[in-house]
Amino acid sequence: MAEEKMVKVRVPGTSANCGPGFDTIGIACNIYNELELTLKKDGPLVIEISGEGAANIPCDSRNIVWRSIQQLLRRAKLDYKGAYIKMYNQVPLSRGLGSSAAAIVAGLMAANEAIGRRFNRHELLAMATEIEGHPDNVAPAIFGGVTVSVVDNGRPECLSFLPNLPLKLIVVIPEFSLSTKAARSVLPKEVSMKDAVFNVSRASLLVAALCRGEKKFLRHAFDDVLHQPYRAELIPGMYEVFAAAKQNGALGAAMSGAGPCLMAFALKDGDKIGQAMVKAFAGKEIKAKYVELTIDKNGAQVI
Amino acid sequence: MAEEKMVKVRVPGTSANCGPGFDTIGIACNIYNELELTLKKDGPLVIEISGEGAANIPCDSRNIVWRSIQQLLRRAKLDYKGAYIKMYNQVPLSRGLGSSAAAIVAGLMAANEAIGRRFNRHELLAMATEIEGHPDNVAPAIFGGVTVSVVDNGRPECLSFLPNLPLKLIVVIPEFSLSTKAARSVLPKEVSMKDAVFNVSRASLLVAALCRGEKKFLRHAFDDVLHQPYRAELIPGMYEVFAAAKQNGALGAAMSGAGPCLMAFALKDGDKIGQAMVKAFAGKEIKAKYVELTIDKNGAQVI
Repeated sequence: MAEEKMVKVRVPGTSANCGPGFDTIGIACNIYNELELTLKKDGPLVIEISGEGAANIPCDSRNIVWRSIQQLLRRAKLDYKGAYIKMYNQVPLSRGLGSSAAAIVAGLMAANEAIGRRFNRHELLAMATEIEGHPDNVAPAIFGGVTVSVVDNGRPECLSFLPNLPLKLIVVIPEFSLSTKAARSVLPKEVSMKDAVFNVSRASLLVAALCRGEKKFLRHAFDDVLHQPYRAELIPGMYEVFAAAKQNGALGAAMSGAGPCLMAFALKDGDKIGQAMVKAFAGKEIKAKYVELTIDKNGAQVI
Repeated sequence: MAEEKMVKVRVPGTSANCGPGFDTIGIACNIYNELELTLKKDGPLVIEISGEGAANIPCDSRNIVWRSIQQLLRRAKLDYKGAYIKMYNQVPLSRGLGSSAAAIVAGLMAANEAIGRRFNRHELLAMATEIEGHPDNVAPAIFGGVTVSVVDNGRPECLSFLPNLPLKLIVVIPEFSLSTKAARSVLPKEVSMKDAVFNVSRASLLVAALCRGEKKFLRHAFDDVLHQPYRAELIPGMYEVFAAAKQNGALGAAMSGAGPCLMAFALKDGDKIGQAMVKAFAGKEIKAKYVELTIDKNGAQVI
C-alpha cells in the first residue's frame, strides 16, 4: 500500500520545572497543537503549518515532527519516504510552554497510530525523552495532568496525577523568546546543601498539597532557590510579576519551563491576576499578554 | 490548687529523613512512649522511667520531658515547681527512631492537656521544633502518618497524610547508637546541582506514589544521594542491608533518621525481609534485631 490512512492527534502545551520541581514537576495545559499525518511510502514530504510560529518552523526534512516520525518508524523497522503533514499550532514557540515537546509527541503519537499502535505510552515517553533530551515536557504532553518525572539510568519514568482542587493557570507571555540552552547556561554546577534541602522540602510539599487538595499549603509550595534566582536576570521584572500575582490572589507563581512565560496558580480571580502580571511586566517596558488555562487531563490524544 | 489532675499521653516513635526526603519526609510508627503527668504547684519533681534506655535518662531537672513541660508552662505564663512524671518507653534511644522528639512531644502534649488545651497542634509543633531544632521527627510525632515538613522563615509547617497502600515498615535496630550531631558532621556543605535534582525528583515521586498508592513507582522512590552515601561510613554494612531487603521483596530501604536503624518498606514478607537484613548486618559482625511496624495514623494522643 503506497498511502496510509490519515490520522489526527492533539497534544497539549506543557509547563516544566514547576517552582521547586526543577527537572521534575510538569503540568499539561489546555492549549493544544493539532497534527494531521498521512504517511506516504514513496514520498514526497509535504508539511503545511498554520498558527503560532508558522513562519519560523522549517517545512522540510529538518522539521522536528518529521524527524520524530522517522525515529518511530526506524524503531518499528518501517520505511516511508514521505508524508503529508498538516500542523495547526496554538502553543507559542520558545516561550516555555513546551512547543518542541508538543511537536515531538505529536509526531510520535501520530506515527504510532498510523502503523497500528505498536508502542505504548511508556515506550513513546522513552523515545520522546531521547529526542528532547529530558522528560520534563514530553511526560506531561503524553500523560496529561501534573507529572513527576525521574530518569533512572537513562530510563525515564513518569507518574501523572490530577490535583484534587480546581487550579487555574494564569500564564503571562512576554514578547521575547529565550532558548533553553541560554537558560541552562546560567545555572551553577554546585549548590549549597541548604538550597538543595529547601527545594526537596518544597517540591514534596507541592506534590502532597496538589494530590490532597490542601490549598493552604500551596502558599509556600511554589518557592524555589535552585533555578529561578539564577534565571531571573534573563527575565526582567520576574519577581515583580510574581509579587503582583500574589498580591492579587494567586496562591503562588513560577517560571514556566525555562521561561520567559511566567505562570500564576489560583483558584479564582484569573483575570485580575493576569492583568496585574501584565502591568508588572509593562513597568519594566516589556509587552506581554496573559491567557487563563487549566490543567489538561488527558495528554496526547488521537482525535 | 496545689495539685492538678493526672493526664496520660501516648506518642509514636518516628522515622525522619525518609530516603530522598532529607530534612523533609517523616513517618510516625506504631511504637510508642507513654507518659503520665501530674503537675505540682510547689514541687517536688519526681520522675520514674521504665522501658527503653531507662538507665540512661536523667531523672532530674535536666530531663527533656520536664524541660519541654516547663517551656509550655512559661509560654502559658504558669508556674509549677514540680510534677510527678511516669514514663514508659518503647522507642529505643539514639537509634534513629525519634526518641528525643517523642519525649519532647509527650511533655508538651501532657502539659497542654493538664492546663486545659491552651495550644493547638500547630502551636505545639512550633514549640517542639524550637526545642528539637528541626521539625523532622516532632512533626510526625504530633500529627501521625507520613509528614512533609518545611521551615519558612523559622516557622515550621507540616502536611500529614496517610499513604494509599498498606505499607509495612521493617526496622532493623543494630546494637550501637549514633549521635545526630556526628551524623550531621559528615555531610558536605555543597552538593552538585545534579544530586540536588536527583533528590528533588525522587522525593516528589515518593510523595506522589504514597499519596496515590502507586506501588510500582516506589521502586525508585527511596533512592537518595544527598545524605545516605555520606553517612554510610558510620553504619558498616548499610548498603548490604538495603540490598538484602530488596532481594527479599522490599520495595525500598532507607536509613531511619540519622541512623543507625535501617528501615525497609514492603507490602508483604516482613519476616523474611527482617531476617535477611539482620543476617546482612551479621555479615559485618554487627548484632541487630528487627521489628515489623506499620504507620501510626493518629500521632500524639491523650489516652
